[in-house]
Amino acid sequence: MAQVRNKQVILKDYVSGFPKESDMNIVDSTITLKLPEVGKVNAFADNPFEYMSNLIIKVIAGFGVSKVLESGNPDYKEGDLVWGFSKWQEYSLVPSTQILFKIEHTDVPLSYYTGILGMPGITSYGGFFELGTPKKGENVFVSAASGAVGQLVGQFAKLHGCYVVGSKEKVDMLKNKFGFDEGFNYKEEPDLNAALKRYFPEGIDIYFENVGGKTLDTVLLNMRVHGRIPACGMISQYNLTQPEGVTNLAHIIYKRIRMEGFNSADFFHLYPKFLEFVLPHIKEEKIVYVEDIAEGLENGPAALVGLFSGRNVGKQVLVVACE
Amino acid sequence: MAQVRNKQVILKDYVSGFPKESDMNIVDSTITLKLPEVGKVNAFADNPFEYMSNLIIKVIAGFGVSKVLESGNPDYKEGDLVWGFSKWQEYSLVPSTQILFKIEHTDVPLSYYTGILGMPGITSYGGFFELGTPKKGENVFVSAASGAVGQLVGQFAKLHGCYVVGSKEKVDMLKNKFGFDEGFNYKEEPDLNAALKRYFPEGIDIYFENVGGKTLDTVLLNMRVHGRIPACGMISQYNLTQPEGVTNLAHIIYKRIRMEGFNSADFFHLYPKFLEFVLPHIKEEKIVYVEDIAEGLENGPAALVGLFSGRNVGKQVLVVACE
Repeated sequence: MAQVRNKQVILKDYVSGFPKESDMNIVDSTITLKLPEVGKVNAFADNPFEYMSNLIIKVIAGFGVSKVLESGNPDYKEGDLVWGFSKWQEYSLVPSTQILFKIEHTDVPLSYYTGILGMPGITSYGGFFELGTPKKGENVFVSAASGAVGQLVGQFAKLHGCYVVGSKEKVDMLKNKFGFDEGFNYKEEPDLNAALKRYFPEGIDIYFENVGGKTLDTVLLNMRVHGRIPACGMISQYNLTQPEGVTNLAHIIYKRIRMEGFNSADFFHLYPKFLEFVLPHIKEEKIVYVEDIAEGLENGPAALVGLFSGRNVGKQVLVVACE
Repeated sequence: MAQVRNKQVILKDYVSGFPKESDMNIVDSTITLKLPEVGKVNAFADNPFEYMSNLIIKVIAGFGVSKVLESGNPDYKEGDLVWGFSKWQEYSLVPSTQILFKIEHTDVPLSYYTGILGMPGITSYGGFFELGTPKKGENVFVSAASGAVGQLVGQFAKLHGCYVVGSKEKVDMLKNKFGFDEGFNYKEEPDLNAALKRYFPEGIDIYFENVGGKTLDTVLLNMRVHGRIPACGMISQYNLTQPEGVTNLAHIIYKRIRMEGFNSADFFHLYPKFLEFVLPHIKEEKIVYVEDIAEGLENGPAALVGLFSGRNVGKQVLVVACE
């Protein structure tokens, strides 16, 4: 039974507030590669979601792409590539109850299975189409619009015939790379309400919510009757000791707005349908996907911290190992 | 062409903040009873919804029961009883575009068409069954639980096999009259979170929202995964210059909660189905309905003001005229 080094990124302690690099350590543990199932982490996405839910996990966890080294489960065999929930370490023992999606299409970058073809992909697809119930010609606003999810929601909305505006630092990228109709940098808008009224003089039908707090509060003032707010994340709020108060919720009643929280697992059953939809678009270059790739577990903490200040451009990916 | 006195309740001016009796005047105007359509107001419900939406309406408006005196619309004839949107005055000229429901069943009190068989009834039915999507055994919390809508939601939930707790001053009535499993007086609970944890140790599946603000904020902490919040009203917030900030909205994401605003018009198409459901329950006394009846337009202002301090017990009805 081979015992090997297993480099890991661990949280030193329960973290309150926004994470700092000094909250994390890179350690060399060892692992014995034995059954039932051992997967080698091949590429890894640092994913804020698990961090934010304040689970006490010593090794940081997220969604990643792995290669199966050995398996006691007949559904997986040595050499299979999979994506799913895993940890920030070189080798993981994966319980058989844990959902892993087998990767069948390898004519796209493997890292896409941490993004457009993985958790963020199915999240964007389910959140936008199932909860957003978009109609052609509707007005869509996306916050954190160049992120792992936002960039896809914007492109899905354009493909569906919607008018789409995104908010994020990289306005050029929103318009020129992802094809948003308009974009603005929220950090350069002293009056968000004025900005929204400028881009949505007739109001917003769908707000794809990634940030929460004051942005949500201002968007509520600009929603249309029967508007929808698929709530994917509220990254501005998770690590605040005292979250910002949202004062305009009565607009949910005035305008009969539907706001619904979700995560990727709510839409896993749609994954085959999603692949059928998205793979041709990728191959025909009708959808692009921008990744911000950091190399090596050692650079994971800095990449994670960067997410909370909006430093990443596109989906933040952390490469643990390459074949 | 007969000209008659038409007593009215009017707003003196735009009102900010909670309404006071001195904001309203009782005036004697005159009206000429002429075609196309004239209805005599027979009984009238003072309805906070229209008031709160800050429409500049000189004569206060709401839902009421009327009798048709003359009609140019072949769907209505003299003597027909109708319910729908009308005004706080003795006689109204109703435009033919306005939806009026003809009253077919008169073996129940006519005032019920301002409540259980009118706008509050269809609101409770649609909000609870369509948006709440209740399952037998689920945990339901209702705020403003002895009000026009709350008392019905609680009884619908019990009929559906749910566990139901209501919040309102009149705890006795909630339990003994409406059959709620538990009730508490929010004014006597210094710690609402502790109260909710006491009554819902396993959390809340459906929160039927009538009040908003701090109540909503605390409920969010106690919702279960995939919980639903049909948002019918936020009466604690409408007339505040600065509404309370709701800080726990991230729980909408953590718990994948669906929150949806609505009003009765969203469910008007269900009215025949609703009558089929509710009339037998009324006749078999499986559903009761409590009204708080004020007599005479002169007493309308006091009744309206009372709604905002929770003074009413049951549906507030204002009788304008009896046959």
